[in-house]
Amino acid sequence: MNNYIDSLQWRYATKKFDSSKKLTKDQLNTILDAVQLSASSYGLQPYHVFVISDNEIREKLQAASWGQTQITESSHLVVFANQTTFNDSHVDDYLTNVALTRKLPENSLQEYGDFMKSNLTPLPDDIKNIWSSKQTYLALGNLLSAAASIQVDACPMEGFDAEEYNKILGLTDKNLNASVVATIGFRSENDETQHYKKVRKSKENLFTQL
Amino acid sequence: MNNYIDSLQWRYATKKFDSSKKLTKDQLNTILDAVQLSASSYGLQPYHVFVISDNEIREKLQAASWGQTQITESSHLVVFANQTTFNDSHVDDYLTNVALTRKLPENSLQEYGDFMKSNLTPLPDDIKNIWSSKQTYLALGNLLSAAASIQVDACPMEGFDAEEYNKILGLTDKNLNASVVATIGFRSENDETQHYKKVRKSKENLFTQL
Repeated sequence: MNNYIDSLQWRYATKKFDSSKKLTKDQLNTILDAVQLSASSYGLQPYHVFVISDNEIREKLQAASWGQTQITESSHLVVFANQTTFNDSHVDDYLTNVALTRKLPENSLQEYGDFMKSNLTPLPDDIKNIWSSKQTYLALGNLLSAAASIQVDACPMEGFDAEEYNKILGLTDKNLNASVVATIGFRSENDETQHYKKVRKSKENLFTQL
Repeated sequence: MNNYIDSLQWRYATKKFDSSKKLTKDQLNTILDAVQLSASSYGLQPYHVFVISDNEIREKLQAASWGQTQITESSHLVVFANQTTFNDSHVDDYLTNVALTRKLPENSLQEYGDFMKSNLTPLPDDIKNIWSSKQTYLALGNLLSAAASIQVDACPMEGFDAEEYNKILGLTDKNLNASVVATIGFRSENDETQHYKKVRKSKENLFTQL
């Protein structure tokens, strides 16, 4: 059996965290490394990620999350905020990063940049929003996998009021939107759901091989 | 360094595959296990996944993918198709699976089922479509991670004509839509991009810790 599959078998959506247990700096760094390394459309990473341990902020966000206890009892709350706008300057920022990282003259990337700009910049705002939000789910996938790989528990969550999150975290002015969140920490001994058998569609129902 | 992070560092979006190299059954199974184990909203897995090695079908799909060579030169093309509709019967199917897997009486799940139905079934079709499509990105994340964990190369791809894919694969009649695809196989020695340094936003630009 493969280590990665083992870790996926080990993980579950943690309902009750042990609030006395906090991630070490190394554990948090591993998880943030994985989020940073996530694949994304054109490599553009059209999102910003908030990593929140502050209790006061988490209490406010909990009220905007149907009171779910994971928000405050976990070690950290991670909010993936997708960019709600996307324009040429975002492509230019990316190209500057490519040129610096790969030690290339920036004008060597102009053709590729024009290609990306022509594909992305003209899209209507609602389509851009959906596109960038989808990328946050890839990054969330890496968070869940990385946490499981070091036996840190996590709970991915869509049950929150995005508009309230945007207000509390001041996201709208930054052209960001709370897309999806995850809590990370350590399961409580009393979380009965850790003992539940994992439920998945059978391979016959999930896959068609052609 | 953590194995999972190592594998993320190793992977890259493969531009040129060696068409003579095919995945073994074990390699393919590991990747499908990971897709099957993906987290999803409420655990509903609102998608179906096509795993395509047939050359004739892949040639048709290549024409609907701006001719990108990965479609036919990889070992397998994986098409994640999200459910375009979602109704009470999908929740009921899930509850039956939960009851069977966990050996519970089905009526013990009715309250939870009603909660899911009241949240999901009334959503407008376009919102359902976006919701289910986002879940495919989580599953794609698992595919990319699993492939990297066993040194299988992959390329996630959004550059295709979804309507054409839907026609070629007969998805529309099944209330499915081609959401995102990935090619898997083995990099060609001639793929120069394997030597490119990975470009990512700096942690300072990507994260805010509160």
